[in-house]
Amino acid sequence: MTRPNMINEEVYIIAKAAKAASRRLLVANGELRNQILLKIATELEERQDEILAANLEDQKNALPLVNNGQMAKSLFDRLKLDKIKLKTMIEGVRTVADLEDPLGKILSKTLLDDGLELQKVSCPLGVLAVIFESRPDAVTQISALAIKSGNAVILKGGREALNSNLVLVKAIKSALSHFPEIPTDSVSLVAEREQINALLSLDSYVDLVIPRGSNELVRYIQAHTRIPVLGHAEGICHIYVDKSANLEMAKEIVYDAKLQYTAACNSLETLLIHKDIAKEALEKILGKLQSAGVELRGCYLTKSLSANINIKSAGLEDWKTEYCAPILSIKIVDSLDEAIEHINTYGSGHTDSIITEDRVRAEIFLNSIDGAGVYHNASTRFADGFRYGFGAEVGISTSKLHARGPVGLDGLVSYKYKLYGSGQVVATYSGANAKSFMHKKL
Amino acid sequence: MTRPNMINEEVYIIAKAAKAASRRLLVANGELRNQILLKIATELEERQDEILAANLEDQKNALPLVNNGQMAKSLFDRLKLDKIKLKTMIEGVRTVADLEDPLGKILSKTLLDDGLELQKVSCPLGVLAVIFESRPDAVTQISALAIKSGNAVILKGGREALNSNLVLVKAIKSALSHFPEIPTDSVSLVAEREQINALLSLDSYVDLVIPRGSNELVRYIQAHTRIPVLGHAEGICHIYVDKSANLEMAKEIVYDAKLQYTAACNSLETLLIHKDIAKEALEKILGKLQSAGVELRGCYLTKSLSANINIKSAGLEDWKTEYCAPILSIKIVDSLDEAIEHINTYGSGHTDSIITEDRVRAEIFLNSIDGAGVYHNASTRFADGFRYGFGAEVGISTSKLHARGPVGLDGLVSYKYKLYGSGQVVATYSGANAKSFMHKKL
Repeated sequence: MTRPNMINEEVYIIAKAAKAASRRLLVANGELRNQILLKIATELEERQDEILAANLEDQKNALPLVNNGQMAKSLFDRLKLDKIKLKTMIEGVRTVADLEDPLGKILSKTLLDDGLELQKVSCPLGVLAVIFESRPDAVTQISALAIKSGNAVILKGGREALNSNLVLVKAIKSALSHFPEIPTDSVSLVAEREQINALLSLDSYVDLVIPRGSNELVRYIQAHTRIPVLGHAEGICHIYVDKSANLEMAKEIVYDAKLQYTAACNSLETLLIHKDIAKEALEKILGKLQSAGVELRGCYLTKSLSANINIKSAGLEDWKTEYCAPILSIKIVDSLDEAIEHINTYGSGHTDSIITEDRVRAEIFLNSIDGAGVYHNASTRFADGFRYGFGAEVGISTSKLHARGPVGLDGLVSYKYKLYGSGQVVATYSGANAKSFMHKKL
Repeated sequence: MTRPNMINEEVYIIAKAAKAASRRLLVANGELRNQILLKIATELEERQDEILAANLEDQKNALPLVNNGQMAKSLFDRLKLDKIKLKTMIEGVRTVADLEDPLGKILSKTLLDDGLELQKVSCPLGVLAVIFESRPDAVTQISALAIKSGNAVILKGGREALNSNLVLVKAIKSALSHFPEIPTDSVSLVAEREQINALLSLDSYVDLVIPRGSNELVRYIQAHTRIPVLGHAEGICHIYVDKSANLEMAKEIVYDAKLQYTAACNSLETLLIHKDIAKEALEKILGKLQSAGVELRGCYLTKSLSANINIKSAGLEDWKTEYCAPILSIKIVDSLDEAIEHINTYGSGHTDSIITEDRVRAEIFLNSIDGAGVYHNASTRFADGFRYGFGAEVGISTSKLHARGPVGLDGLVSYKYKLYGSGQVVATYSGANAKSFMHKKL
C-alpha cells in the first residue's frame, strides 16, 4: 500500500498528462481517431491469451470472496471474461469506429455582417474520468467512446479486476503508441479506492465524471466533487393507468416494465391507477404479476379493492424506493393531477409512462412530468441509448443540464464558437453611427 | 435583522413555492407566457412614479456611502433609474416577448418502430436563482427571460437597491396575479446577503444558479454550491499576431479589443506576437495604445525590441491577470504552437483571436485553443449574445457543459424525450426472436 500523499501525487500526474493528451486529441481528425480504434481492436485480438490469463488470475483471487459471501455472484459474473465475451468487446470497439463522427459538426452558422461569419461547432470536452466496478469490458468500451469523441480518459476500475484492466489498458496504450501525434496518456488507469477522492478533487484537469455502478457509488461521487457528473443515482419509474386506459395493454406494459429486467434503472417501481377503473385494472394486472412471484405492496384502497390477493401495505418509504427487485408498490389516485403530483414529488425524473386512450390527457401528462423520459402507451424499459438508436450509450442522466436521459456520444462533446472575420472591430457597430448587424442564418 | 435560521427558513419557503410554481409554468403555452410579459410591461408603466420614488430612496441611502468611499461611483450609476432608463427596461420586457419561443421545439424525431415514435423536445429547466449586484434593471430583464423560458426565478438583488427591487417585483407579481393558472411565486426576491448561502444549498429546488457581478462573486458562488452555475469568473482574452498577420489590421483589432470597453470580460488582456514580425508589429501597434494611455507590460524581448517606448516588465502574474483596466501585457512567442500553449495554460477559455492571412494556421489555432470563442481576424469584443444575434443574453459561460460562450434563451432550457407508443413492450425486441428497431429519422 502506498501512502495517501503518494497516491494523490500519482493521480495528479496522470490527470495532468491526460489534460496535455486531450490538447492533442482536440486536433485529431475523425479518420485518425477511427484508425486508432481499429488498431486497438487488432491489439486486443493479438493479446487475447494474455488478457484471458490475467482475467483468470482475477477470477482466482475473487473466488474465495464469492465463496465466503464478500463478493456478490453477479459481480463475479461480470468480472469473468471468455473468448466469446472478448470477441464481443473487440467488435464493440469496431462498432464505435463505424459511428458518425460527433466532432466538427456545424450546429449553426450566422452571417453577422459581410465577411464576419459565426459558426457553432461541436468539439471535445477534454478529460473524462470514468469510475466503474468489476466489468473489464467497460475498459474497452469507454476508451473507444472517449477516443471517438476526442477526449482523454482516466479509468478507475475496481480492484477485483485489476489484472484484467491492466492488460487491457496496456493493449490500448500499445495501439496508441503507433500514432506519434497522440500521446499514450490519452487513456490511463487508476486502481486504488483511495484515488477516487483525489480524482474527484482535480476539477482543473477533469471535465466530466461518469460513474457506472451502484446508486451508492453515484450518490457518493455526486456528493464529493465539483466536477459535473453524468449519471443518475436512482430510477424510480412510474406507470400511471388512466381512467381511459386500454387495460389489456396496461397489463402487458406493466408486466414488461416490472419484470423484463428487474435490476434495470428503467424498470417499474410504482404503479398508479385512476380510481374510476381501479377495481377492474387491479384484477386484470395483478394476477399475472402475482403468478410471476412479484411482491405487491398497495395503498389502503388497493388492498380493500383486491381482498382476494395477498398485498402488503405500502407507505411513504415505498414511494421513495427503487426496489431493483420483483416488488411493486401500487397506489390508487383520484385524478390525473394527483398522479402527476405523486410522480413529480417521489419520482427521480428518470422515466414515467401513462397508459390511456385519451391523447389530450396523455399530452398533459407528458408535459407536466418533470423528467428525462415521458411515455405514452409504452414500457419504461425503452429508456436506453441503443433502443433510442444512439448506437452507443454513455449512461442515463437525470440532470437537466448538458445531457438528459439516455446519453450517446453527443454527451461527450461540447461546442465552441468560431468567428471568421476580415478585420472587424466592435467600435464599428457601437455608438452614434453604429452599423447594424445582419444576423443572417446560413 | 432577522435571525439566521429564520432567514434560511424564509429562503426555503420561497424556493419550495418557486418549485411548485415551476410545475405550472411547465405547461404554460407560449401565448400565455407572452401575455404575462406584456402585462408586466403595462404594470411597470402604470407604477412608474412609485418605482422612481423607491429608486430615489435607494439613491438617498447610497449617496453617503459614495461620498465616504464605501460604494464605487460606477455601482451608484448602475443603481440610478430615471424615466428614460425605465422606459428602456419596459421595452426590454416587450422585446423578450417578441423572441422566438424556446420551448416545445422538436429537436429530433425518430421512428423506433411502427407506432413507436421518439421525440426530443425542449422544455424548461425549473427554478433559476439569479444573484446580482445593484442594477435594478436586472430584475425586469431576468424575470422576463425566466418567464419566457417557462422557468420560475428567485432573484437575489443587492441590499443597496432593495427599495427599487421590491417595487419592481411587486409590479411583476401584480401582473402575474391576473393569470390564475400561474402562481405569483414564479418570481420572488430575497435581499439579505446571508440568504445567498441558504439559496446555494437548496439543490433539490434550484436547478441553475446565474451570478451576475464581479469575478469574486462568481468565484464565491462556484465554490459554495453543488447546483450548476452558468457564468464565468474570469475573462483573460488573448490576441495572437501571427507572422503572416496584416499588421495594419492587427493594430486596429488590438486597439478595439483593449480599449473599446476596458471593463468588459471579453476585452483583451494579453497580446502575443510571433518573433519573426515582432519588431515591426510592436512599432505599429504600441504607438496608438500608448497615446490612448494604456499601460504596457512586456516580456524581456518586447522591452528590448521597443527601447524607445516605456514598457514595464511583465511576469507570470501578468499572464494570469484580468486587468479590467487600460493595461496590456505583451509576450513574444517563437511559434504558433507556443502561442497556443500559452493561451491554453494561462487563458480562461473565454475568447481568443488570431490575426493572420494564413488560413491553415488560423484553422490550427481555432481548433487547438480550448475555449468558448476562437476568432480569426476579429476583435475579442464580439463575444456577446446580442452581437451573436441571440436577441438576449443570459450570461457568458466558460463551462463546457450545457451552454458555452454567450448564452441566449437556449441556455435556460433543457429537453425531455417523449415516447409515443401503442402498447409496445421491450420483450418484443429482446431475446432469441427479437424484432429489430427501425430507428428511422423523421
